[in-house]
Parts: sequence; structure tokens; C-alpha cells
Amino acid sequence: MIYFKDGEFLNEDQIQVSADDRGYAFGDGVYEVIKVYDGKLYTAKEHLERLVESAEKIRINLPYTMEELTEIVESLQSENQLTLGHIYLQVTRGVAPRAHQFPENSVPVVMGYAVESQRPLQNLEMGAAMKSVEDMRWLRCDIKSLNLLGNVLAKQDAIEAGCQEALFVRDGLVTEGASSNVFGIKDGVLHTHPANHFILNGITRRVVLQLANELEIPVLEKEFTLAEALDMDEFFFTSTNAEITPVVMMDQQPIGQGVPGPLTRKLQSAFNRQIPQLTAAGHAEERESNGPAS
Amino acid sequence: MIYFKDGEFLNEDQIQVSADDRGYAFGDGVYEVIKVYDGKLYTAKEHLERLVESAEKIRINLPYTMEELTEIVESLQSENQLTLGHIYLQVTRGVAPRAHQFPENSVPVVMGYAVESQRPLQNLEMGAAMKSVEDMRWLRCDIKSLNLLGNVLAKQDAIEAGCQEALFVRDGLVTEGASSNVFGIKDGVLHTHPANHFILNGITRRVVLQLANELEIPVLEKEFTLAEALDMDEFFFTSTNAEITPVVMMDQQPIGQGVPGPLTRKLQSAFNRQIPQLTAAGHAEERESNGPAS
Repeated sequence: MIYFKDGEFLNEDQIQVSADDRGYAFGDGVYEVIKVYDGKLYTAKEHLERLVESAEKIRINLPYTMEELTEIVESLQSENQLTLGHIYLQVTRGVAPRAHQFPENSVPVVMGYAVESQRPLQNLEMGAAMKSVEDMRWLRCDIKSLNLLGNVLAKQDAIEAGCQEALFVRDGLVTEGASSNVFGIKDGVLHTHPANHFILNGITRRVVLQLANELEIPVLEKEFTLAEALDMDEFFFTSTNAEITPVVMMDQQPIGQGVPGPLTRKLQSAFNRQIPQLTAAGHAEERESNGPAS
Repeated sequence: MIYFKDGEFLNEDQIQVSADDRGYAFGDGVYEVIKVYDGKLYTAKEHLERLVESAEKIRINLPYTMEELTEIVESLQSENQLTLGHIYLQVTRGVAPRAHQFPENSVPVVMGYAVESQRPLQNLEMGAAMKSVEDMRWLRCDIKSLNLLGNVLAKQDAIEAGCQEALFVRDGLVTEGASSNVFGIKDGVLHTHPANHFILNGITRRVVLQLANELEIPVLEKEFTLAEALDMDEFFFTSTNAEITPVVMMDQQPIGQGVPGPLTRKLQSAFNRQIPQLTAAGHAEERESNGPAS
């Protein structure tokens, strides 16, 4: 695999991270995951703009312009001949002797790589299960930072319970997933947590809100409780890699009829229509149906 | 400098951290800072026991026994001929392709190094200033983890305000410093936040509580407000490197008379008596006075 680091494209064995990188000592950095479909970047502009925003929020001065960042992720795609998968890109505050305060002259370290991965077709089709966990994370979840231990522990908790994703609940209110945003549908209305400091404003979340608008599905960006979540007619979580994953079980209780619901299917179909169309032989079914693999 | 990593003692330029180290991608690890006075480790056992505890709390299985960890930090001291400074030691969950859940077969990465540093004699003598900031960190501050972005941002905020340390306030109550515990003295009683999930139970904090007991200074481990902090007769913060640093200004208001108070001085003197005595020529004053450099 070809990595990008500090202005160079390198082989895996040439990549060296300093033990004094503030990403390693403090998680002092931000990142993005950008999907590649059919060799084409999907919503790269939105992801890179959010990278810049996240960096600004923790006052890291990115050493690259938007144009240069775009070139980097495009090169990571092409150098790795990535057809289906994602580009990972992270920026840390740089290398300096360990001290909490910002170092005076550190240069941010930008590192990226490409990952080949399939779409989660089984989850997209059959739906997934979630487990609720207490949201103990910090109060700046709007920043896509490398401080992810709370997310890691929640995800592991969910996986060990036989679920695919954790559902964070803070003070009784549903916030988001361990690595996703969450949506419920009740009586035809799409509910999701407002984009404030309690959640990451996901790019796929924004796509879904846009698609809901186009499909004339009314949206309510307002907190709801775990009990309300369990009582939704439909539920799903979204992320760059999870796309729109229906949730059919939550805390071992079925959501609605325990199968992906009709509005979730409509949103999935609309989502599939606007991603770069898959022309690889193994994915002909998506090209033909323009809908979830069904 | 000689580093320790994965069972070997290496030169600085031989140290390589993997870009796939979970410490780098998630801050998925824990650490300790152990002070060395006069070439001798101070409270190493307590620090290493806490490292084991922190690791257990996030379910990292340390690949070394307490005896082996002790040997590692002792070797870092001796290999680097460290007389005065500290040993840094961190453990991450290991190297694996990036996914939030625990990898199945990763081996924890243990990395450590030695840092030469002077005692903060000026702060110990003259006192320091603190700035209050909102405590936005996660709810497991009892774990000494690598997720330190909240601490980093708070410390930077304080430094830019001309202070030496930040004072975290959560829901109106004082918790701790950005990299220290905090204590107030009012009418002869020592106040500090109880050791729960809102603070790290500092080793120096424990030493101070023990010394207070020996000096017959009554202790109240109970939350207090920022207003109560500002109204204390004396205030100080503690950490491995800060030792017992008097606080003479907080949010630009003097604490007590604006000079280190008498009980703080008593605690500093008692602290100095029980650390390994400094025999290096440059520190003869401490050996002679057994008190803070005054």
C-alpha cells in the first residue's frame, strides 16, 4: 500500500511515526475517512472542508490548501488503484518534546492511506443490531479528533453483545453511534439529534437530510430518549462506510416489525442513485437495480 | 537518549512507531510519568500499579509483570544516567488495521524514555497562577489515558492567559488541573475533590493526603465551587513534576494574601523531606534546608 506522509508518497515499510508525535502522546489531531466508489472519491470536498474545520477548532494550522488536500486524497486513490474502499487522512499537531501546551514551532504531520473494503451489503440488506451504552465522551464531539477511546470502548461493548454498533445515550437522550449518526422514523417523520457539540455532524448524515428533503420526508432535528428510540417505527445509522444501515434490533428488542422499514429502503435507494455507480463486475447488481442489494 | 520499545533498549533514531498503532489512531492507551531524584525512582511502585489499573480499566493486557515493568523503568534511568528528571512510559493496545473494536491478536506496544528536567524551583518558591476553564473532558478521568486533547486545550488556554496551569470546573465544581490535582485550604482544613471518575487520583495527591495526616492537617475530600476556590486562604496544585506548587493568583484574583501560605509551606517541607535527597552540587540548597528553595 502507498501511504502519504509529510509531502511524500511512500511504501508501507517507509512510513515512520515519531514517538514524539503529539498524535501518539495526546491524540492531538483530527482525521477524515473518504469513501471511494468505482475509483471515484465520494463527497471528498465535504470531508476535506470538515477536516479544515476540525483542525481550526483545535487550532492546528493545516500545511495544505483545500486544493492540495484534494490532490493528496486523489493521489492516494490512484497510486493505490483503489476501486472500492476508503481513504484515511489524519493531521496531528506535529512532533515536539512532550508538554501539554502547543509547541512553538511544530509542523503538523499529515498522514494518509487507502483501504480496500466492500460495502456492508449484508447489513444494508438485513439490518443490524445496536446496543445502548452511556455516552461518557467529552463535550466536543463535533470535532472529529483522534481522542476516540470512548468510542472504542462503546463499540467493543456492542460487538461483544453480538451487535454491530453502539448507541450512545447521554442523560437519557440518544446522541449518536460509536462511529455513526443515528436516525429514527416515527409516523413518517425522520428524527435525529441536532448538529451541536454532542455529536459529529456526519457527511452521510447531511446527505440523508438532503435526500429526505428531496423525498418529502419531514425531518425533526431534536433529541429523543432511548425509550422513544425503541418505540420508533424504523431506525438506522449512517456513516461513510456504513452508508444507511437499517437497525432492526436494539437492546434485544425489535424495532418496528424487526425488518428494515419502507422509508429506510426509500432513503437507501436514493442514496445508491447518487453515489458513483459501480461498474466492477462483482457489483453489477447495484448498477442494475440502483437499489440496495436485494 | 535511550528509549525502551517492545522489549528492547534503542537509540532515538531506531525508535519506530507504526502508523497503525492504535495509540496513534485512537489514543487507545495509557501512560505514567515517574520522577527521578538523585538518580533514584520516586514512588515508582505506585505509578506502575496505577499503570496496571489504567490498562485494566480499558482492558489492555500488559505484556509485563510488575517486576518487569520496574526493571524497564530502572533500566531507562540507568541507561540514560538520569539524575534529575522523569521516566515516561506508555502502553497502547497495539498495531492493527484501523477499526474501533479491539483487534483480535494485537500485542500491546510498550514505549518509554527518560527526560532530564529541573525541579520547578521558581514556581515552588513564588507560586503560580491558574485560569479556570470549563471541564469538557470525558467521564473517565480516573483513567490515565492518551486521550488528552481536552487537557491540551485547557493548558494552552491557561498559558496564553499568562498562567501556569488551568483549573477545570465542571457544572460549577472544581475538579482538577489540566495536568495536576488541586487543593484549597480554608480555616486550617485541606479541601480536595474526591477520587472518583471526574479526576485522576494522582500519586502526588496521595502523598499530600498522607503528609497532611502526619502533620495533623484535617482533610475534606469533597467538591467545592469556583467561588469557594477563590475564597480559600491557600491553594496549590500537585503533580509528579509540579510537586506541590502554591497558587497565588486565580482568574487574576489573589488567593489569600497573594503569597504561598503557611500550611502549603509545611506540606512542601514535609514533601521535600521524603523524596530521595539531592546530592548533586547544583541542588545542595535542598539537601541543606530540607525545605523549598527559599
